[in-house]
Amino acid sequence: RFGYFGKDKPEVVKLLLCNVSGCLTDGQIYISANGEDMVSINIRDQAGIDMLKKEGVKVILIEQNPITKTLADKISQRMGCRILLDVDDKLKEVEKLMEKDGLEWKEVAYLGNDEPDVKCLNLAGLSAVPLDAPVVALNAAKYSCHCAAGRGAVREFAEHILLLKKKAKSQMEQDRIGRDT
Amino acid sequence: RFGYFGKDKPEVVKLLLCNVSGCLTDGQIYISANGEDMVSINIRDQAGIDMLKKEGVKVILIEQNPITKTLADKISQRMGCRILLDVDDKLKEVEKLMEKDGLEWKEVAYLGNDEPDVKCLNLAGLSAVPLDAPVVALNAAKYSCHCAAGRGAVREFAEHILLLKKKAKSQMEQDRIGRDT
Amino acid sequence: RFGYFGKDKPEVVKLLLCNVSGCLTDGQIYISANGEDMVSINIRDQAGIDMLKKEGVKVILIEQNPITKTLADKISQRMGCRILLDVDDKLKEVEKLMEKDGLEWKEVAYLGNDEPDVKCLNLAGLSAVPLDAPVVALNAAKYSCHCAAGRGAVREFAEHILLLKKKAKSQMEQDRIGRDT
Amino acid sequence: RFGYFGKDKPEVVKLLLCNVSGCLTDGQIYISANGEDMVSINIRDQAGIDMLKKEGVKVILIEQNPITKTLADKISQRMGCRILLDVDDKLKEVEKLMEKDGLEWKEVAYLGNDEPDVKCLNLAGLSAVPLDAPVVALNAAKYSCHCAAGRGAVREFAEHILLLKKKAKSQMEQDRIGRDT
Repeated sequence: RFGYFGKDKPEVVKLLLCNVSGCLTDGQIYISANGEDMVSINIRDQAGIDMLKKEGVKVILIEQNPITKTLADKISQRMGCRILLDVDDKLKEVEKLMEKDGLEWKEVAYLGNDEPDVKCLNLAGLSAVPLDAPVVALNAAKYSCHCAAGRGAVREFAEHILLLKKKAKSQMEQDRIGRDT
Repeated sequence: RFGYFGKDKPEVVKLLLCNVSGCLTDGQIYISANGEDMVSINIRDQAGIDMLKKEGVKVILIEQNPITKTLADKISQRMGCRILLDVDDKLKEVEKLMEKDGLEWKEVAYLGNDEPDVKCLNLAGLSAVPLDAPVVALNAAKYSCHCAAGRGAVREFAEHILLLKKKAKSQMEQDRIGRDT
Repeated sequence: RFGYFGKDKPEVVKLLLCNVSGCLTDGQIYISANGEDMVSINIRDQAGIDMLKKEGVKVILIEQNPITKTLADKISQRMGCRILLDVDDKLKEVEKLMEKDGLEWKEVAYLGNDEPDVKCLNLAGLSAVPLDAPVVALNAAKYSCHCAAGRGAVREFAEHILLLKKKAKSQMEQDRIGRDT
Repeated sequence: RFGYFGKDKPEVVKLLLCNVSGCLTDGQIYISANGEDMVSINIRDQAGIDMLKKEGVKVILIEQNPITKTLADKISQRMGCRILLDVDDKLKEVEKLMEKDGLEWKEVAYLGNDEPDVKCLNLAGLSAVPLDAPVVALNAAKYSCHCAAGRGAVREFAEHILLLKKKAKSQMEQDRIGRDT
């Protein structure tokens, strides 16, 4: 949709937006009669988020489904990311974030997994869905992960983002050399 | 079994009956020495139930297996559905519900997963089993989900129901136009 | 190994011996720093055990691995079966049980999943392993389940046992009629 | 990389180094708002570690990811192995261990699952990754398990180690006989 490797100045991703349920987790919620809700997270995905932050990519988690505030806080703290709760209109929320940080869509990466993500998956410079996402989301995403939700999809997309970032940087370098000679 | 797209007045589903263990959950019960029983539920299935309720389809959960009353209450509250416990004779129970609401079988959708569901799977206007259901249930169901139990089967069946509902409505509209011209 | 459908008097299984870890459970133990161990059990396997008991087949659970006594008691109570703990020599233990009940090997069914089960798998009239058992156990078993451990293998073997029991009974009936005419 | 079955004196593995997250566990961490972290371990992997210890192979667990000290202690105690926490530079740490015990790389087996393990996977006499390891680790490993992480990979590698140990011993015996005649 835009020229990563074209003649325009190649842009690189500065922000990753990522769903919690169905992307960072597999969507399962473990419940017991009087106990707290439990979810599971893969340590490889945590590593993927760390990789992005180390390379200067901001990561923000989004949760549309009603998970408890305390569990959301725990996930946010553990991943070292801000988490947006009760997001009804994802497009609106993302555009608000972008405006605040002065970002364009080509600087945004989006990992979604369902129908409410379709608009953002279409607009984001880079977008992906986990292996097990429904067709409606799959069709809108630019990249389809080989890993399932909650089983490495975030890590895989992080590696994909960093690889393209590296390629873009290397091209900018080449362009500069070309101009100078 | 009946003419959705035939010449009769097309009927639409008004009630979904759905097993808890083996349909809404994957049938696993997590147990510890002194702790409470734990089950897991997928957030996509919860979304499926919400979709149906929004379109005016009533959803009632059925549980034949001995899960604790408190856990059943939690599931019922979370899904926002009534739950029927200790159901021995499913056919009898469902017919009681239908009579109370003045429903016919063609207005009932049924998601089951085992031998005790066979009669209802056969009679219901729409019926389905999760991917991993035993053959005896599979053979009786009109639709076989691509998703496994506790991993999106309820959501998938909900989408199937709503799609057919939409088709039926659109045909009623066409018939009406046909009659008027 | 013996003539179910041969000319000898067909015998039927009177006792099922079944491993807990790796047969009734998938072998996973959930652990936390200070919490109790947790395991998961499938409700279909519980139904399988109930089916056997209803048809007069005694079910005894065997556990070789070091699970806590309190968790074992919970499983035993839940399944309504006696559980044998810390079983080092399975063959010896099983033969002791058989002697006490006056049973022969052809009246015993055995569901095992690993090397220590090989002798019993070879000797038992009926024997099986879950889908995911290692080759050493698979080769010794007379029946290989299509279900994995903790995901319906016990239920599947129970149905297999009851089917053969029914066939054996029906042949006894026929033989009796044949003798009478 | 070295001649197990060649003409050199065949060496046997004396130490297994094994990652916790992603090798002994499947990398999933179960979290709840106020509860403790939970991980799952397969009883077959515990059996694999016991098999190695019985044959005189020392087993040391390595954890790079930030799991809580108390959970690490529990795993260490349960497996009966020392556990190294917060290992940043795995190569350096392993070489320190080897020096202390006077071991060479050909006496070391290594079960890893990701990029930080690549150097050790390359150097170790025997090395393996679970079925679901990323390509970067897979390419460096000498053996690729058929079992996934947390689902028997440790047990499978243990059996592989013991088989080669047996073969090496048998060859040493043959060589000795050859020399004597």
